[in-house]
Amino acid sequence: MSGALGTVRVVGTGLVGTSLALALRAKGVDTVLWDPSPSAVALSRDLGAGRFAAADDEVALVVVAAPPDVVADVVASELATHPQAVVTDVASVKAQPLRQLTARGVDVSRYVGGHPLAGRERSGAVAARADLFTGRPWVLTPAASTDPEAVELVRRVVELTGAVVTQMPADEHDEAVAVVSHVPQVAASLVAARLREVPEPSVALAGQGLRDVTRIAASDPQLWTQILAGNAAAVARALHALRDDLDVVIAAVDALGADSGAEAPGARAAVARVVAAGNEGHARIPGKHGSAPTAYTPVVVLVPDRPGELARLLQAVGDAGVNLEDLRLEHSEGRPMALAEIDVLPAAAAGLAGSLRAGGWTVHL
Amino acid sequence: MSGALGTVRVVGTGLVGTSLALALRAKGVDTVLWDPSPSAVALSRDLGAGRFAAADDEVALVVVAAPPDVVADVVASELATHPQAVVTDVASVKAQPLRQLTARGVDVSRYVGGHPLAGRERSGAVAARADLFTGRPWVLTPAASTDPEAVELVRRVVELTGAVVTQMPADEHDEAVAVVSHVPQVAASLVAARLREVPEPSVALAGQGLRDVTRIAASDPQLWTQILAGNAAAVARALHALRDDLDVVIAAVDALGADSGAEAPGARAAVARVVAAGNEGHARIPGKHGSAPTAYTPVVVLVPDRPGELARLLQAVGDAGVNLEDLRLEHSEGRPMALAEIDVLPAAAAGLAGSLRAGGWTVHL
Repeated sequence: MSGALGTVRVVGTGLVGTSLALALRAKGVDTVLWDPSPSAVALSRDLGAGRFAAADDEVALVVVAAPPDVVADVVASELATHPQAVVTDVASVKAQPLRQLTARGVDVSRYVGGHPLAGRERSGAVAARADLFTGRPWVLTPAASTDPEAVELVRRVVELTGAVVTQMPADEHDEAVAVVSHVPQVAASLVAARLREVPEPSVALAGQGLRDVTRIAASDPQLWTQILAGNAAAVARALHALRDDLDVVIAAVDALGADSGAEAPGARAAVARVVAAGNEGHARIPGKHGSAPTAYTPVVVLVPDRPGELARLLQAVGDAGVNLEDLRLEHSEGRPMALAEIDVLPAAAAGLAGSLRAGGWTVHL
Repeated sequence: MSGALGTVRVVGTGLVGTSLALALRAKGVDTVLWDPSPSAVALSRDLGAGRFAAADDEVALVVVAAPPDVVADVVASELATHPQAVVTDVASVKAQPLRQLTARGVDVSRYVGGHPLAGRERSGAVAARADLFTGRPWVLTPAASTDPEAVELVRRVVELTGAVVTQMPADEHDEAVAVVSHVPQVAASLVAARLREVPEPSVALAGQGLRDVTRIAASDPQLWTQILAGNAAAVARALHALRDDLDVVIAAVDALGADSGAEAPGARAAVARVVAAGNEGHARIPGKHGSAPTAYTPVVVLVPDRPGELARLLQAVGDAGVNLEDLRLEHSEGRPMALAEIDVLPAAAAGLAGSLRAGGWTVHL
């Protein structure tokens, strides 16, 4: 079946390009690899992602996995040198490359914009995984003039990676990622940036909340500058909306800080509304399995902080026949123990707690 | 030893008050409980947190674990009704209650402000744990006129909970929590609030980054309004600084969105500087064990999503003699498997990967 798809040419053998090629190779698809860096493409080949590209490859599909800044150039060049092939890309912004292509008069009937929502904190072929896309959304953003058969080919190839294909207009995609990805990145960076100026004893008061909010603040500035620049219009709209909300909070907190009891009630209501609006927005985020959010019940267990103890605990959970939905570990500063928070379906919590206690574990439910 | 401390009266038997009382009972300290809600104090008593308070209790220390809004009132009242006792509190803002007490002429020589940096997403006595404070910071903020012996008594009691006691002026504490706790809360709420307006298919593109940034956006609006109002001056300063940074990003993104190549280089540099500033701030957050951040190496393993498999994996990790520093689970939407990311010391990673592969596990390193 997959043989009928023809050869897939992957241009750019970093994390995403190599992971895609590995996933396709695992399904028996013929893949050829190209990258401006000879060592990058050699590494990708050695990892089993495919063979080196050659001038006489008969290519059915080109996947451009290049940095956001050069995507339109590379797509245009691949469309020209492979006049029979469909071309797709994996850039995280979609309206800009389409605009750049049409602005220079490129026929986009064979071009299908794409964006796999998958990634890792590490980059490069060495971090590639054949299962990087498994179960993750992969958005296709064909233009009005894109050939439906071209879209169908890209969809068939992408589905081989285990990704869940969805389709939406490029503008709608960019509005979406501005809100679910680009603005959260900016917010995390801004919150983390505040930490530069506080004294050491203050940073020591950091808790899990701060760690969660700022985790993605460790991201690569160069890559993120390209992403934000590429989606500037949608990001600007979302950031202006965020600033409007922030101005409301600041006005309210300023009024409260003035310690004038008269205006405090209105100001308090304004602050409460913002936190409540956050509750509502947060409740819309789908659960881990992509379904509607489920309220799991956490069962908290004390675990000695040494090899094998967590395994023994999870063995006991398995023996109880309970499926673990999520697990968080909380280490205790300077203490030889950790807390494991095991999320289970609410109906299973009491039984699990009883069974673990019977096995000698200290359980909090 | 702990007998010499005398009786500790806990006023307010919610999560923090009951957890503290449980921790003290475990060390043999005599505790008496009071709460304006009879059912709350009964639950706390039944959980083993101590006995009901009586008019003739000889109290050495009063711990006020009341909502932020009423802390100063309750502290003043406890100082008056227990003229021999030291009084401390656990409110998350510290300058305001001190200001309110001195404004009404209360002698604060027996009052020691305190703030345990510990909490849970759930509240109430039912969520209380004797180990809630283990290894967590507990800040004491005595005033200049506070009796050193009063501070020493509070320190001795707090240390019985396993908390790590630190001491700083109330103003410095409030500046610190504004940056490490209150502003992150506001930012998370603002980012989550943006999600209210996006269509369903867009929310479906949410990834782990968004989940992390917005996790604390699920917090209680009423409690957070009290906290932000109580620390309004410091929060206002930090929010104004955040807005200044945000304005720089917005100006830069606006310039980029205008697609005028001439101003883009300066705008790009401005965006890159903000992300880089976030990198720097993020790097200052201490690691899980409270020590300097350590770079662990993640070993990624495919785990069938059914009872017992994760236990089998961690058994294998334990058998390899490797200590697991952290573990994250990544479920795959609609697929019967998960990815376990096991953080280990860099020197242990290759050996662990080899040993797991030999055991038949699919490992990515």
